[in-house]
Amino acid sequence: MSLIHATISAGTIREAHQRIKPYVHRTPVLTNSTINAITGAEVFFKCENFQKIGAFKARGAVNAVLQLNEQEAKAGVATHSSGNHAQAIAYAATLRNIQAYIVMPENAPNVKRKAVEGYGAKVIPCTPTLQAREDTVKQVMNDTGATFIHPFNNDHVITGQATSAVELLEQTEGLDRIMTPVGGGGLLGGSALAVAYFGENCKVSGAEPKGADDAYRSLHAGKLIPMENPDTIADGLLTSLGDKTFSIIHTHVEEIVTVSDNEIIDAMRLIWERMKIIVEPSCAVPLAALIQQKEKHKGQRVGIILTGGNVDLDRLPFGN
Amino acid sequence: MSLIHATISAGTIREAHQRIKPYVHRTPVLTNSTINAITGAEVFFKCENFQKIGAFKARGAVNAVLQLNEQEAKAGVATHSSGNHAQAIAYAATLRNIQAYIVMPENAPNVKRKAVEGYGAKVIPCTPTLQAREDTVKQVMNDTGATFIHPFNNDHVITGQATSAVELLEQTEGLDRIMTPVGGGGLLGGSALAVAYFGENCKVSGAEPKGADDAYRSLHAGKLIPMENPDTIADGLLTSLGDKTFSIIHTHVEEIVTVSDNEIIDAMRLIWERMKIIVEPSCAVPLAALIQQKEKHKGQRVGIILTGGNVDLDRLPFGN
Repeated sequence: MSLIHATISAGTIREAHQRIKPYVHRTPVLTNSTINAITGAEVFFKCENFQKIGAFKARGAVNAVLQLNEQEAKAGVATHSSGNHAQAIAYAATLRNIQAYIVMPENAPNVKRKAVEGYGAKVIPCTPTLQAREDTVKQVMNDTGATFIHPFNNDHVITGQATSAVELLEQTEGLDRIMTPVGGGGLLGGSALAVAYFGENCKVSGAEPKGADDAYRSLHAGKLIPMENPDTIADGLLTSLGDKTFSIIHTHVEEIVTVSDNEIIDAMRLIWERMKIIVEPSCAVPLAALIQQKEKHKGQRVGIILTGGNVDLDRLPFGN
Repeated sequence: MSLIHATISAGTIREAHQRIKPYVHRTPVLTNSTINAITGAEVFFKCENFQKIGAFKARGAVNAVLQLNEQEAKAGVATHSSGNHAQAIAYAATLRNIQAYIVMPENAPNVKRKAVEGYGAKVIPCTPTLQAREDTVKQVMNDTGATFIHPFNNDHVITGQATSAVELLEQTEGLDRIMTPVGGGGLLGGSALAVAYFGENCKVSGAEPKGADDAYRSLHAGKLIPMENPDTIADGLLTSLGDKTFSIIHTHVEEIVTVSDNEIIDAMRLIWERMKIIVEPSCAVPLAALIQQKEKHKGQRVGIILTGGNVDLDRLPFGN
């Protein structure tokens, strides 16, 4: 077998899977006859919205935190995020009984702050700019010696995220394709590696909001083109690829499909109404892409990773 | 074994279960660590919101429709309902390729009418009074010879609804109690019979909105006291018990717990936020009752039947 990735091997992924198994759910795979009829494909939904902390991010964070040696662990872990990665790191820190430091923009919703503090993490507010966020994390690391765990541009995180696709391949025979959303690319990159190592005649695509289409443009340009002013309802996908995730995705992902916010909302509504499960807008992006491109995938077996279910019920994109 | 029910035996329920199995889902049982922590009990949720047509009502309707002889079936089936029973009868009729006639108040939401028509059923509008509803159904039966299938006061329907508790007992060992909502009492009555035949040291309780508490008052009075002006957000539980369901519930249900609409909304929100699944307000009533009475059930294994997930996403009881 030719070299698929320099540092993340099939063995690395298998070991990560064993490492995190006691602390994450083996989430179920659901199907829905109405959605099959609409898409003309057989769709298998891997429900990471039922994962610990309500999102796949628990996998990568747990894998990264469990890899720290005793001395590193003692000083704690740090990250900047107001989203699912923040909760995931906070949760992972509880497993080793260590301190998590979460740098969060001061305008982040109170509910997100409370969710993280609920795990015993320390929230450090900062002004809501990328510069302030990075400066504040550096300060925290200097003050505490905590290890920074990047939300996606980190081998341990990518490897952890890969385990969802590993399970999906185990749970569903003969998949022709796996589709995931793409933001920073940790899940898409990890899934692409999982399929490269463990899939058989299975392709991988990413699905991305038109309003945050840096992966689409970067893949076409053959180089990283970060997004300047992302604007989409899929608030988990505002981030741009990093160098590590770009390099995997560039090599192992067949295509990136972009969809509008209206397509995302329609797909999200379809999942809520027909499957009776709660998914985030970001989570509905691959189904939106599949519906848009349904002629291409007719009759195929398509796995979709439903990434998370953390929505603010007081601000839903339905009704008036 | 003493006589538990004159016409619905353990064998009747087992036969019904075999009869409907090809046409309904064996729904999963989910647990949630946060809800266990809040209630102090171990709670096992039987997810009938994932059932065909999005509610347990598929079980009773399919059982009743499959019991019709060839001649009866040819003339079709009729019922009056704007809710899940209407969809369930419409779905069941498709299995025998027969006509369903659904009498529905003319002010019923368009989406409910369309859902029923989507199965090929004929919708007959009537003025929104009980009298008009019953008169219209009689007219339909006269005109067509269709068999009327009552939403709950019907042995075949009660027997079909019993199969959800049968599965819950199979899927979960050592349950101390099963709780269901109570409206007309088909599910509660069926569950009580299932537990009487197949449970071991398992009790049954019903949970009811304070604004539609006819079962509570009827059980205390020892006779049927229909509700005059029910008023609750749990729109699946507006109906009063019938004589068949009252007699079962009076004998085999330990207690009825009543809860306020605020308690129902809080419990519904808890299920949405923590379990990431969509349930109707009616469906959250037993969890609201368990939370209200948590001292009584501490440390016990409690099964809750989540009855359905058909909500109008444009009119949710969250937000402002």
